[in-house]
Amino acid sequence: MDFKDYITVVSDFPKEGIRFKDITTLMENGEAYKKAVDEMADFAKEKDIDVVVGPEARGFVVGCPIAYSLGIGFVPVRKAGKLPREVLEVDYGLEYGKDSLNIHKDAIKPGQKVLITDDLLATGGTIEATIKMVEELGGVVAGIVFMIELTYLDGRDKLKNYDVFSLVTY
Amino acid sequence: MDFKDYITVVSDFPKEGIRFKDITTLMENGEAYKKAVDEMADFAKEKDIDVVVGPEARGFVVGCPIAYSLGIGFVPVRKAGKLPREVLEVDYGLEYGKDSLNIHKDAIKPGQKVLITDDLLATGGTIEATIKMVEELGGVVAGIVFMIELTYLDGRDKLKNYDVFSLVTY
Repeated sequence: MDFKDYITVVSDFPKEGIRFKDITTLMENGEAYKKAVDEMADFAKEKDIDVVVGPEARGFVVGCPIAYSLGIGFVPVRKAGKLPREVLEVDYGLEYGKDSLNIHKDAIKPGQKVLITDDLLATGGTIEATIKMVEELGGVVAGIVFMIELTYLDGRDKLKNYDVFSLVTY
Repeated sequence: MDFKDYITVVSDFPKEGIRFKDITTLMENGEAYKKAVDEMADFAKEKDIDVVVGPEARGFVVGCPIAYSLGIGFVPVRKAGKLPREVLEVDYGLEYGKDSLNIHKDAIKPGQKVLITDDLLATGGTIEATIKMVEELGGVVAGIVFMIELTYLDGRDKLKNYDVFSLVTY
């Protein structure tokens, strides 16, 4: 299956000159969505992962079904003010701005093997912040999966020390 | 399995007097998360559902693994400005404010049987807006599932004409 057949490229979103990769058309197709999740889960299967971590909101659409498929838990990374208990907060640079991300301090146990998931590897800012949070809590990043990688933005340069899998590259 | 054992009740979040039901501790537990998803998917199984629809961000953590489990697609409902193609927009009253929700106009085909998912039924504002969008696009709401229902807020009064399942009630 060529997953690109199910991804819609939208010109000038969210601003002029950006060719946005819209995964909603892939997710809406049950067969394509299932195969995409299965292929990403297969990458993780031999890594003895304890828990999946993903940033909101599109990291959830990738990470939650992978966690379900592997029979393990999912830990959400969220924008400030969304998580109700004690959090670790990390600032990060977005592709189109700046923000901060939170994770519950008790969500990762020291030594746990973590799979980080997101829809898109662009410049890598969100994932770098997510890795930092996982490692500060004592977790081991055993793998990172993306549905899409924009190779021309060189986000992978930030991830040299990690085992990374991208389902589709542009 | 008593799912309440895995949900954390947090006092005074997001504001004083609210006893927030935190599902992250359920999701972090692989066995509990899988059983919760399976039980919600079981409700949907005999309804011949074509597609799952859920509002961001917590509707994704419920709806995406249900869609994966059923082998059908997932359609995201998002805040304004997040979806890249032509959208239908509906205003709604939140439990703690007011906002608007978007869905891609081509995401639901007329006559499709839809399962709507969210983490929480409180006053029902978000779900009412989601139903409105699905029906305006010609979809048939064949079922609605929540991980948690706060029965004392009477959100179910807004859903009298629908087949509703809540995994846990308070």
